[in-house]
Amino acid sequence: MDKFRVIEVKRSVFEDNDADAEKLREELKNEGTFLLNLMSSPGAGKTTTLKRTIAMLKDEMKIGVMEADIDSDVDAKAIIETGVRAIQIHTGGMCHLDADMTRQGLREFGTKDLDFVVLENVGNLVCPAEFDTGAIKNAMILSVPEGDDKPLKYPLMFSICSAVLINKCDTLSVFDDFDCKAVEERIRKLNPDCKIFFGSAKTGEGFEAWADWIRAEVKAFQNK
Amino acid sequence: MDKFRVIEVKRSVFEDNDADAEKLREELKNEGTFLLNLMSSPGAGKTTTLKRTIAMLKDEMKIGVMEADIDSDVDAKAIIETGVRAIQIHTGGMCHLDADMTRQGLREFGTKDLDFVVLENVGNLVCPAEFDTGAIKNAMILSVPEGDDKPLKYPLMFSICSAVLINKCDTLSVFDDFDCKAVEERIRKLNPDCKIFFGSAKTGEGFEAWADWIRAEVKAFQNK
Repeated sequence: MDKFRVIEVKRSVFEDNDADAEKLREELKNEGTFLLNLMSSPGAGKTTTLKRTIAMLKDEMKIGVMEADIDSDVDAKAIIETGVRAIQIHTGGMCHLDADMTRQGLREFGTKDLDFVVLENVGNLVCPAEFDTGAIKNAMILSVPEGDDKPLKYPLMFSICSAVLINKCDTLSVFDDFDCKAVEERIRKLNPDCKIFFGSAKTGEGFEAWADWIRAEVKAFQNK
Repeated sequence: MDKFRVIEVKRSVFEDNDADAEKLREELKNEGTFLLNLMSSPGAGKTTTLKRTIAMLKDEMKIGVMEADIDSDVDAKAIIETGVRAIQIHTGGMCHLDADMTRQGLREFGTKDLDFVVLENVGNLVCPAEFDTGAIKNAMILSVPEGDDKPLKYPLMFSICSAVLINKCDTLSVFDDFDCKAVEERIRKLNPDCKIFFGSAKTGEGFEAWADWIRAEVKAFQNK
């Protein structure tokens, strides 16, 4: 038997998702649980990034992962192997999570004792950007093979994230048309304060800076 | 001045998209225009695939491309350089195209004299799978860097496509955990009759079989 549950969440009945998201953020602040909403295209490396991030941080803070997927549970299986708590959320075909779906997942999961919870959103650069989940911060992963033009094509996603991790940088010699400077400029044009990290979840390159950002964010949040 | 127009399409007012899609398919049959709905994740290589496909087929048939994007027009610019007609459709933030949005694009484009029109859908494995565009056939691109587990995570997309092109196969030595046999089995389990092509839009490897499939489909359609 797998050591995680699968939760089928239902689309919110609330018309005002933004107000509901603000309410959820207040609830999380009262609990002291930092929720990070992690987004990307399919296959950009969200789960591999999480596995490495967890290995770096799990002795410092209590971590949990909520894996959102339309159907499968392969990601929750991978996360549970890292030794942290995980839950699989099935969105019932929905392409994103809203605040109420996130709350349903959090309640079933039980996150009050956790310091840092990651919501791995559905792999999609469009719809998840449009729905505030109520997370404390948004972050996204752009992988080198996807190309440096993605900020031009999916501007909203790049605008709403506090951090962008450029992943699979170990393949820059293969994808030699990926222009690191251009992608950075394109992101900054949309979102001047965004933290941008270049790294590889596979090799670990650049992950200290990414982990430091999480450490600082969680600490600042809990000291408020 | 760019040699293509940008069309802002509006969400359909029709409640029954399936019926509207059937109607559009009939209209296309009467016109003799084969419309291919091409889908993938962001950055899987739709535009590069189209550029190579056009170079192989443009002396045999009259080709047009409708580029759908939320905002930018970088893809239409790239296509116009191949010498075929292109149009940029802006979806106004929408994550997919429905049949009526597709019809709006086709009408503005003027496709009656074209044999083969490709609709490059928004980069997204979720929502475009749920909305029949009215195209004669659906095809999708899965790129090697995305991973071989995608059919498990986005089953609907793999179920509705007549052909799947596994792209960026020139990087298989870098992404050496991508199991070609496993991905093929996973696709066949969802969609036994699906044509599966392994290739690289960058190197041209495997593209003869892909182009042959298009040739055969367009010919069969026009001889009906």
